[in-house]
Amino acid sequence: MTQGKLFVISGPSGAGKGTICKEVLDEERNIRMSVSMTTRSPRKGEIDKIHYHFVDRETFEELIEADGFLEYADVYGNLYGTPRDKVMEWLDQGIDVILEIDVQGAMQVKKSYPEGVFIFILPPSIEELKNRIKGRGSETEESMARRLGTALQEISAIDQYDYRVINGDLDVAINRVRSIITAEQCKLNDVEVGKIINRYKEEL
Amino acid sequence: MTQGKLFVISGPSGAGKGTICKEVLDEERNIRMSVSMTTRSPRKGEIDKIHYHFVDRETFEELIEADGFLEYADVYGNLYGTPRDKVMEWLDQGIDVILEIDVQGAMQVKKSYPEGVFIFILPPSIEELKNRIKGRGSETEESMARRLGTALQEISAIDQYDYRVINGDLDVAINRVRSIITAEQCKLNDVEVGKIINRYKEEL
Repeated sequence: MTQGKLFVISGPSGAGKGTICKEVLDEERNIRMSVSMTTRSPRKGEIDKIHYHFVDRETFEELIEADGFLEYADVYGNLYGTPRDKVMEWLDQGIDVILEIDVQGAMQVKKSYPEGVFIFILPPSIEELKNRIKGRGSETEESMARRLGTALQEISAIDQYDYRVINGDLDVAINRVRSIITAEQCKLNDVEVGKIINRYKEEL
Repeated sequence: MTQGKLFVISGPSGAGKGTICKEVLDEERNIRMSVSMTTRSPRKGEIDKIHYHFVDRETFEELIEADGFLEYADVYGNLYGTPRDKVMEWLDQGIDVILEIDVQGAMQVKKSYPEGVFIFILPPSIEELKNRIKGRGSETEESMARRLGTALQEISAIDQYDYRVINGDLDVAINRVRSIITAEQCKLNDVEVGKIINRYKEEL
């Protein structure tokens, strides 16, 4: 059984990685998205195990102790993380997995699972990133400046990634991410090479 | 200027690489196909510089002497080859180039241009390969056995390739080759990483 591939889709907040992942998942079979765990309370409409695994702080901290996360972070007092078990189980079953996470999380995953495929989603420009952040709700000038500073810092981590997709036109960006997944599925590894040669040999 | 990419599309005769390349080229912009040079006479309908560069043996041999081919071969007394100059000129201009060549040719290109992207087109089965070869014209049992033996030998070179595309359903195969090209165009290299970071920095 060939191991599944882990696709880590990441980039600054406002780059559009969430929308892209949703569309890609809707069309691809045999690929699953990891559900994050969090200590924050569910918002209206959020369903446990679909949007997040909602747990209390003690449960989360026990899992940290047990090295149970591929990555986790404290965001304004709430803990968020990617439980390792489910992802590993899928990969072992040959199922590809998508993680949609921020750049700091992606860098943690890169350390523990460097064989992942790291895709960076970029906004077409800082100007456009500003517009998108503005569109999401009221930002003070100060919080906007902080967000843009963070975005630039995150973009500087791009050398750790395998692919970049500039999300100017959403359809083009979705097509590129899907192409990356398809191409990675066509990549040859030693196990597969042996299998292919044997298969044709037996047939002859 | 980022260097263009060289896509070497190869596989046993009957795998369908010609049809796939034609379809891919019809849809992709900014990608060109190299035109081979040959010493054989034009067949009906073949146009010089479109289907082949038709030259005499002396011209071809002079170009061999001058190391002017990325690859060449003698096929039943006729010489066929990929002139190096045009391909290199396009790559230097940042234009991607497709070479559709046999496995022996691809292995020559791999030696002189290992940074190429090597894609292997496979028939879905030996049975199907037989049918396709039969469909092309009258084959004696002996020539069929020789062709299949060659195909198996060629498939054994698959470990030298980066990607494999099984051509069972033509549309699926075309989509996969296009995805590989798109994905490779999204790959990050050091030059690009520097450019991206600078672009966003300047904007801020």
